[in-house]
Amino acid sequence: MRAPEAVLKRIDADLDQSLERLFAFLRIPSVSTDPAYKDHCRLAADHIAADLASIGFTTSVRPTAGHPVVIGSAGNGKGPHVLFYGHYDVQPVDPLDLWETPPFEPRLAQLPGGRKIIVARGACDDKGQVMTFVEACRAFKSATGALPLGIKIVIEGEEECGSKNLPVLVEASAAELKADLALVCDTNMWDARTPAITTSLRGLVYEEVTIHAADRDLHSGLFGGAAQNPIRVLSRILAAIHDDNGRITIPGFYDGVHELPADIRRQWEGLGLEPESFLGQVGLRIPAGEKDRLLIEQLSSRPTCDVNGIVGGYTGEGSKTVIPAQASAKVSFRLVGDQDPERIRDAFRAFVRARLPADCRAEFISHAAAPAIALDWSMPALGAARRALAEEWGRDAALIGSGASVPIVADFKRKLGMDTLLIGFGLDDDRIHSPNEKYDLASFHHGIRSWARILAALAE
Amino acid sequence: MRAPEAVLKRIDADLDQSLERLFAFLRIPSVSTDPAYKDHCRLAADHIAADLASIGFTTSVRPTAGHPVVIGSAGNGKGPHVLFYGHYDVQPVDPLDLWETPPFEPRLAQLPGGRKIIVARGACDDKGQVMTFVEACRAFKSATGALPLGIKIVIEGEEECGSKNLPVLVEASAAELKADLALVCDTNMWDARTPAITTSLRGLVYEEVTIHAADRDLHSGLFGGAAQNPIRVLSRILAAIHDDNGRITIPGFYDGVHELPADIRRQWEGLGLEPESFLGQVGLRIPAGEKDRLLIEQLSSRPTCDVNGIVGGYTGEGSKTVIPAQASAKVSFRLVGDQDPERIRDAFRAFVRARLPADCRAEFISHAAAPAIALDWSMPALGAARRALAEEWGRDAALIGSGASVPIVADFKRKLGMDTLLIGFGLDDDRIHSPNEKYDLASFHHGIRSWARILAALAE
Repeated sequence: MRAPEAVLKRIDADLDQSLERLFAFLRIPSVSTDPAYKDHCRLAADHIAADLASIGFTTSVRPTAGHPVVIGSAGNGKGPHVLFYGHYDVQPVDPLDLWETPPFEPRLAQLPGGRKIIVARGACDDKGQVMTFVEACRAFKSATGALPLGIKIVIEGEEECGSKNLPVLVEASAAELKADLALVCDTNMWDARTPAITTSLRGLVYEEVTIHAADRDLHSGLFGGAAQNPIRVLSRILAAIHDDNGRITIPGFYDGVHELPADIRRQWEGLGLEPESFLGQVGLRIPAGEKDRLLIEQLSSRPTCDVNGIVGGYTGEGSKTVIPAQASAKVSFRLVGDQDPERIRDAFRAFVRARLPADCRAEFISHAAAPAIALDWSMPALGAARRALAEEWGRDAALIGSGASVPIVADFKRKLGMDTLLIGFGLDDDRIHSPNEKYDLASFHHGIRSWARILAALAE
Repeated sequence: MRAPEAVLKRIDADLDQSLERLFAFLRIPSVSTDPAYKDHCRLAADHIAADLASIGFTTSVRPTAGHPVVIGSAGNGKGPHVLFYGHYDVQPVDPLDLWETPPFEPRLAQLPGGRKIIVARGACDDKGQVMTFVEACRAFKSATGALPLGIKIVIEGEEECGSKNLPVLVEASAAELKADLALVCDTNMWDARTPAITTSLRGLVYEEVTIHAADRDLHSGLFGGAAQNPIRVLSRILAAIHDDNGRITIPGFYDGVHELPADIRRQWEGLGLEPESFLGQVGLRIPAGEKDRLLIEQLSSRPTCDVNGIVGGYTGEGSKTVIPAQASAKVSFRLVGDQDPERIRDAFRAFVRARLPADCRAEFISHAAAPAIALDWSMPALGAARRALAEEWGRDAALIGSGASVPIVADFKRKLGMDTLLIGFGLDDDRIHSPNEKYDLASFHHGIRSWARILAALAE
């Protein structure tokens, strides 16, 4: 069916109240990776559970070994069911001094070109996106008295720190969570006017490596020249991961990486993604990835490696002539196709160990290991969602691969046998994970309307 | 002349009182780098000034922009004069929990092999070493009624935080401080039985470099593969500084580095410095420097480069999928021979800039640029000091190069036209700058006797 006009009108009329509810959610500093915010994560879980209950969902807040998971369900159990997934946790806010206003005091602002935006940590990722779905449900309930189909919801609190505990809960609650299809709202549009459905996601292996040398910090004047310097050792290892063409040199890394089918490659070439528009927005010009690949390939269909953090020795103001006892880096890999996360992790560790000079040893911590995901393009639900998005935006939705990772999507497929439609309304300039994160007011408003149309279309 | 027996006997007889005076000095927590200890630094200056006055020195405590400098002089202005330099400030004590007893409560202890030691922060560096000289003067005064030659003393309070204000005072007080020769007691013996005179010091160029890429932190899932990662760029640059043989690849870096004269090389080979003894004390085994060089060359006669600190991206607990906007490193070079600090600095900056990929830029801060120092081995004062040390220790003094830098020695040469003899009684296992710093009682006792003999020898 098509979304009733009454529902769409209700969404338009209620936009200010919808924003107020989003702001209340955004004010909770639910930073999952920092133990100092543990109580705030619990508050955020309670908040969203109560909000869902207010529109007729049966909800519960389930404890895990980490932050709790919110589970909700509504509908009579007959007919098609969907499972919606989102997360209430947000990224850390550092560097705090680069925020124009406090990250947990949401505000409306206007960009020079006239676009209205919502500014706050989590405005897009993922509280704003989650609320597009919740507000669509609210409008349906309010305007028609019922939801158009059975809906289950799972909102977790550890997406930004690896979703370690959600798979356990999904497995234990398989019967309760199983639906015909999963929906995720944590991805981007193609551009501000063109919606997108993400049909593939890169996987993620995230490793932390610490190189140890001497058993104490040393004076570089007395020991320099003779003592191993773990920063130098670490730099050499990190520098060796890529060759001069941007290709990753870890043996076996590209096993399971497939070349693009010719028709997809033609479609992608036709999308005309130019470095100026994509990289120009963040002050860059030249793609830095594999030299013989399209920019869109570098960003979505090719695996990558990035160093996300590094620290060692004296990092305060001024100088200290120290050779530190250790240095460490956080290194992540985005995986595609059939790359095996466990094999990549092992290959990386072997790569590091093979480059350790005498007197050095390496320690590792695994923060994530999830495979890539790809949808079957002929699935009926995908067609229904495309039609609904085209009605709302007046343009066909782009079917794209995303460079990001949403590990739970692999679990939905493996453990619950469900495919997942990833539909989100973020934009490339939303600064998620960065200071001054924002979400376009248009993304929020038309996002809500989009979900109303998609839910109606899926109810057929 | 040779030191009168009466002076040496007085030193032996007064050792307990000498220790008491050292302990009183050690009880003052004169940590110069921490503003919380400012008053204690002033107390330490007053303390040593008063002690010098008690043995006939005319003393004054001179204010500077930082901690004060103590200046003293004794003698009638005729005949040869020496200028003694030392420092009353000490290193911070952290990590405090690794100290077996409180760092500012000095005590005598005994090592398993039977060596008696003095344990306290500053026991060696540099209060213990300063007091070997002061006690030698006291014994001369007490046993013979006079010092054997004119003596000027400068004791500063900022050696452990960069000696920023001393050069200004040295320049302003050039006429007052000028002497025939400078003496410094802030270095080590060759081993517990073999005295040493340090005849060369490495210079120091200390640079901080920051690599900038995008104008904000980026999400590595969305931008990874296409955006320049400044940590990766920095790692590649740092990794390129050394080749596989440990040689520094910066063009022109070795200009002004001289090969060892054959006779010195033979002497150094004969010293038998083994990695086990030198590196083994800090948990290392294999020299990490230029592969074709002796360990002692790597440590003293060869220039080096060390990364003293590095930081970029997310360094907290857990994981964050960020590509940071910037990454920075502190990089220092120890210079030898006629290497030119300004040219090395410029060559390093050019080396970095030549390796910047598109979209990246580098910023630099200079923290130090001081040349190496080397004595003329034929100078008469060096011969006199060697004879005096041989009399005291029953072994020839080793003439060694030190890997460390004592910037004031360059100022003595450039601003006052004075050569400097660096003679100290520290040992490699003294743990200076570390918890449980110690000074051998034998270093203290024979150090005092050594200075008595040296002062007598220089009076000829």
